[in-house]
Parts: sequence; C-alpha cells; structure tokens
Amino acid sequence: MSDFDYEKLIISIPDYPEPGVIFKDVTPLFDDPQAFQTLVDEIADHFMGRGITKVVGSEARGFLVGAPVAYKLGVGFVPARKPGKLPRETYSQSYSLEYGTDSLEIHKDALTPDDVVLVCDDLVATGGTAVATAKLAEQGGAKVAGFAFMMELCFLKPREELAKDYPDTEVFTLIKVK
Amino acid sequence: MSDFDYEKLIISIPDYPEPGVIFKDVTPLFDDPQAFQTLVDEIADHFMGRGITKVVGSEARGFLVGAPVAYKLGVGFVPARKPGKLPRETYSQSYSLEYGTDSLEIHKDALTPDDVVLVCDDLVATGGTAVATAKLAEQGGAKVAGFAFMMELCFLKPREELAKDYPDTEVFTLIKVK
Repeated sequence: MSDFDYEKLIISIPDYPEPGVIFKDVTPLFDDPQAFQTLVDEIADHFMGRGITKVVGSEARGFLVGAPVAYKLGVGFVPARKPGKLPRETYSQSYSLEYGTDSLEIHKDALTPDDVVLVCDDLVATGGTAVATAKLAEQGGAKVAGFAFMMELCFLKPREELAKDYPDTEVFTLIKVK
Repeated sequence: MSDFDYEKLIISIPDYPEPGVIFKDVTPLFDDPQAFQTLVDEIADHFMGRGITKVVGSEARGFLVGAPVAYKLGVGFVPARKPGKLPRETYSQSYSLEYGTDSLEIHKDALTPDDVVLVCDDLVATGGTAVATAKLAEQGGAKVAGFAFMMELCFLKPREELAKDYPDTEVFTLIKVK
C-alpha cells in the first residue's frame, strides 16, 4: 500500500453500470499530475531491477497505466487489443468479464521466449482480464514475472483467481478497495 | 523530423483494412524499448517549458503515446473516450473518420480554463480525430497549445484540416509518410 492518498481522488458512482454496482471512477488519478506521476513511479520502482523486458496491458485503460510504467522501466509496451484491431497474425485469448465475455489479442512477434513480462492494468476486479493477458504473454513464449494494478477490488477476490494459474507470481496493487 | 530510424520498425500492410489502403502498423515502435523511449522523449522534450498542463489523447492508441508523454512532461493525462465509457457528465464531440464516423467524450471536470493542452495521438490521417479532441478540450475551457503525433500521413493533408480551426497551433510529428 502507498503513502499517497489516492483514495481522495477516486469518485464512487452508485448503480453504474447497473443497479447494485458501485463503480470506482479512477480517471481523476490520471488527470491529477501528482497522482499520475506517483502511481507510475510506485509501480515502476517496485518492479525495477527484476529483469522485466516488456509491460503488457489490455485495451483501453491498461494502456493508461502500462505505457507510462513501461516508459519509466525503460522497456517496451505490448498492447493486448480487442479482436480485429491488430493487423497482423495474432495470438488470441478469451475470458469472462464482470459484465460479460470478451477476448484479447497480441501480435505473434510482440514477445519472445527471452521476454520477462509485467502485466499491468488500472483495475483488477475478478482477475479474468489479467489472467487472459498473462496467458497471451505465455502464448508468445514469455515468462510472466508479475501483475501490477492501480486498484484492487478485494471483495471480488481477484488474488484467488490469479493464484489458480499463477500461484508464485507477485501481485502488486496501490489501492485496495475492501 | 527525428534522427532516430523509426521507419525501419514500421510494417506496411497492403489492402488493410480495405483494398487499396496501405496500413502502417506502428505497434513495433511501442514494443521496441529504444524506439518507445526515444519517441516519448522527443515529443515531450519538444513541448517542455511551453506551459502545457494536460495531455489529451483519444481512445485507444492515443493513450499509448499520450500517457507516457504526459508522465514525462510531469502533467496529467485526460483520456478522450468512445461514447458511454466515462461514468460521469461529459462533453461530446462527433467527427468523421477515414473509415466512418464516431464521437469522443471527456469528463466535464477533466479540464478548466487554466489548462493548456497538448493533443497527442499515435497517427494523424485526415486530422478529424485530432480536431475533435482539440474541440473537446476547448469545450472544457482549455487552450490548445499544440498537436503531437508519432506519424503523419502527409498524403491525406491533415495539416490543411487542422489549419482550418487551428491555424496558429503547432503540429509536431516524428515520422512523415509522403
């Protein structure tokens, strides 16, 4: 957990996108210069020196965290995109969302067996997107060395889901919503 | 124009997404650590010291360039998102795409009249998305101080389109495709 008070910037929206769900709007964390700098630094500094060679983040909000974290780590960023967005040969991975199902793709030449990957997203809810992103990286031959999220919805138990396939992989989050 | 040889990493895909179009796949520029660091540095360094307070980038590939450029500039990043993705009150702006029409939204509280904005995207084609993003920023009361793109498809004359509404605003691009 961080010393920075990210929580004061997060806006809770009741009954969005459906009744009974409290949506956590994290866009103010990107808008606020100090919050944005601090969150990128905290994630990148945590994984600095661990041999990460690529950050992989899923469309679209995973790009907001993953791309600057990759920049700070001095490594490349691999976008995991929605189906049909990447123009060349891809690996594909389907997954269950909190509100439906979807799949993600990466270019087949985006990763190699020499790559050590940090999976990065703004938020982890059920963990489905994160597992799919990690499995995509593994389809590319890479090793998954860690997961980093700005926010963790602990009540949805994403760590239990991640632990099924990645029991020994570190999960790092800045903001825990109980 | 940059001294770095970005072109060698760009992959041209003929007849994608439709016959007669040569699609420029720029994802290898994000994947390559040196290209990614250099492109973010070149854009951010160019606009450093100009009083930029926010970078605004459009979903989804504008996040890949805009978020790390905002990080490097030490400012906040405002995502201009597809309709229905932002949970609170938004400004909306519709525009013509190369392959259809769409609209973009930002949260009403994302910008203020004190903000000086850099509009950032991976690629400028007809200029429609960039103009819409700039107009969104202006709806938020902000001043648009510049446009920055990784790649410019010069043959589509985006500067002519941008000049209609923003004749005195600088357009900075790293890679020019004639």
